[in-house]
Amino acid sequence: MPTSRGICVPGFRAWGERDGRYGVALVECSTPAVASLMVTSNAIKAAPLLVSAEHAAGRVRGIIANSGCANAFTGEEGVRDAKEMCGIAARLLGGSAEEYLVASTGVIGRRLELRRVEELAVRCSRRLVGSPQGSEAAARAIMTTDTFPKVCSLRAELGDGRVVEVGGIAKGAGMIAPSLRHATMLCFIATDAAVEREVLDDALEEAVRRSFNRVVVDGDMSTNDMVVLLANGRAGNRSTDGFHEALREVALRLAKSIAKDGEGASRYLEVVVREARSEAEAEAAARAVAGSALVKTALAGADPNWGRVVAALGYSGAKVVPERLSVFIEGPEGRVCVVERGRGRAEEEVLEAARRVMRGREVRIVAHLGAGSASAEAYGCDLTCEYVRINSEYST
Amino acid sequence: MPTSRGICVPGFRAWGERDGRYGVALVECSTPAVASLMVTSNAIKAAPLLVSAEHAAGRVRGIIANSGCANAFTGEEGVRDAKEMCGIAARLLGGSAEEYLVASTGVIGRRLELRRVEELAVRCSRRLVGSPQGSEAAARAIMTTDTFPKVCSLRAELGDGRVVEVGGIAKGAGMIAPSLRHATMLCFIATDAAVEREVLDDALEEAVRRSFNRVVVDGDMSTNDMVVLLANGRAGNRSTDGFHEALREVALRLAKSIAKDGEGASRYLEVVVREARSEAEAEAAARAVAGSALVKTALAGADPNWGRVVAALGYSGAKVVPERLSVFIEGPEGRVCVVERGRGRAEEEVLEAARRVMRGREVRIVAHLGAGSASAEAYGCDLTCEYVRINSEYST
Repeated sequence: MPTSRGICVPGFRAWGERDGRYGVALVECSTPAVASLMVTSNAIKAAPLLVSAEHAAGRVRGIIANSGCANAFTGEEGVRDAKEMCGIAARLLGGSAEEYLVASTGVIGRRLELRRVEELAVRCSRRLVGSPQGSEAAARAIMTTDTFPKVCSLRAELGDGRVVEVGGIAKGAGMIAPSLRHATMLCFIATDAAVEREVLDDALEEAVRRSFNRVVVDGDMSTNDMVVLLANGRAGNRSTDGFHEALREVALRLAKSIAKDGEGASRYLEVVVREARSEAEAEAAARAVAGSALVKTALAGADPNWGRVVAALGYSGAKVVPERLSVFIEGPEGRVCVVERGRGRAEEEVLEAARRVMRGREVRIVAHLGAGSASAEAYGCDLTCEYVRINSEYST
Repeated sequence: MPTSRGICVPGFRAWGERDGRYGVALVECSTPAVASLMVTSNAIKAAPLLVSAEHAAGRVRGIIANSGCANAFTGEEGVRDAKEMCGIAARLLGGSAEEYLVASTGVIGRRLELRRVEELAVRCSRRLVGSPQGSEAAARAIMTTDTFPKVCSLRAELGDGRVVEVGGIAKGAGMIAPSLRHATMLCFIATDAAVEREVLDDALEEAVRRSFNRVVVDGDMSTNDMVVLLANGRAGNRSTDGFHEALREVALRLAKSIAKDGEGASRYLEVVVREARSEAEAEAAARAVAGSALVKTALAGADPNWGRVVAALGYSGAKVVPERLSVFIEGPEGRVCVVERGRGRAEEEVLEAARRVMRGREVRIVAHLGAGSASAEAYGCDLTCEYVRINSEYST
């Protein structure tokens, strides 16, 4: 039994249905919500992103999303199809097409099968619920190569004592990139907090920067990445103190779920960089390590090849003071220092201890650059044959 | 029988010896040569790079290189070891240690086994020859995960009618990156042309930019990348017209050999971008496609998933005009247009024709961005389970 409310915070209902590779999720806001939207910085933007960007300017009544077809690189016809998805949602849930956001994920360059989307949407509309089951069904419907649904929610007390809920669902397992300026993968977050549009935009931008934008699976940036935040104001709060933190926490938990479900991953990787000259440099260094094909394959083999970590830090663009550099490998099994203030450890007992830690399901690489006092994290996973298998056979 | 003279152009002799994972190559210039050197832009530079950069300022009598240990991240001791390698070369071939360049490749963070290097160097010094066999032995000695030695040479007539030879050897199969500013992998090129230092530096920089810097294997930038160009002036030419072109051709052939020998590669990939706004944008776009994990895995599966090509072009930073974009997949089996001026092809007969082309050993993806008239190429390979296997088990 799912226990997290996910996106079904007060005033939101959701459901999802699947039919083979296609899936449709519906999210309904019974109180129209203020929307904040971030989309991929890829120059080739999928049609639903263009349509949602228009619709997000006004109050929003809901979201319709599908898996199975990205509706990307589909020209004018794709834009018409995306608008028609909004029309389907409006006919089922009320209001006009312009009051709905639309998102898609799947194969690029194919036209949507609108009839199939409509059939699934009709089934969704009959089962919409404001419960954890609704969130989970919606999260499952938008999965592609994901192996589990990503759902999370929390309650937070704001500055005026009012308690608000923030919750969301996400999908994303591949085509996930280290250098997005705006957003990545599909994620829908809802809150019953009352938040003005400008504050909402700021809060989302900051949360995305520190969560989804620090997830690295394969370094490929999608044409369809989208993060939506809807706020319906039901909680009646006047203060938004504490909202940013709550949103950031929800975004971070969803982002980590995505990293844990990286395509073919056998191990989750968290990279922590400390003592960097700036947060930007710390982030660049953490991303370089989390995104390194050589670090990722070493992790797959539980091989404490820390030289690859040092090389990745070196090419990240961050300042590294070699004689002060320390690197630790951590996990539930313990903590091993493999580079100690510039001195690499090659003793067999050290390497064997590191191997034991790396055999766990969750591994953390901590690097102290010795160049300052800023820090940042990145979230990733190992690179396995399974990743290659999944992506060699995806479209055909 | 090898037929290319490789680095053994007039005035150069070479040999290489191996002992398990260690290998040593010696190159001797009987006429001391002017040297041009380019090294990795990684902030963590291996000791031999630091030592060679000092020694390259004067006339050079030879090169000593080893595989099996990168002598990187080894501090002051590493620098002493690299200097001692030059000392070994000087004792065997004459002159002083400062007249030798040194290069290393292998595992990062381990001290060199100098005794082993010396034993192999002594064996090399007894067999130095100015023949194709010498080049090939040297090229084999510096191989790590390479599956074949990279050797090439050519003759060129310069502006004054003099014929010069340019030839080289290279190694490199992994830790090969798309965004080097200076150089990548190990490559030693020799010529009997007379070329002043400044012209030599310019020629090398341009040749590297258009060859090695356009090879993408796994996006990891090494701590040890080095390209050396030695010119002994024996040909007596007064003009250097035509030298740049000859050098570029040698560098390009060696660069392509490296891409063809990408770790675990089953297919060679050439990406050609045309109609870009500038050469820099064309190069960025070509590299993005050649470096995309999703394009590389699709290639491994001979899957004409052109949407991934479009997505990579989109995030490359190059201007793409979607409605003018065309993408072709080419190979010895034919040429298939999969995106035709903005229209993606999803018909089964088109995809099946593309699959046939992609099943070949060499595949070329040609993209017309519709944004200008500049073009550039990038050289890479597919991403297979074998890559993962090689790199999961490398150091232990």
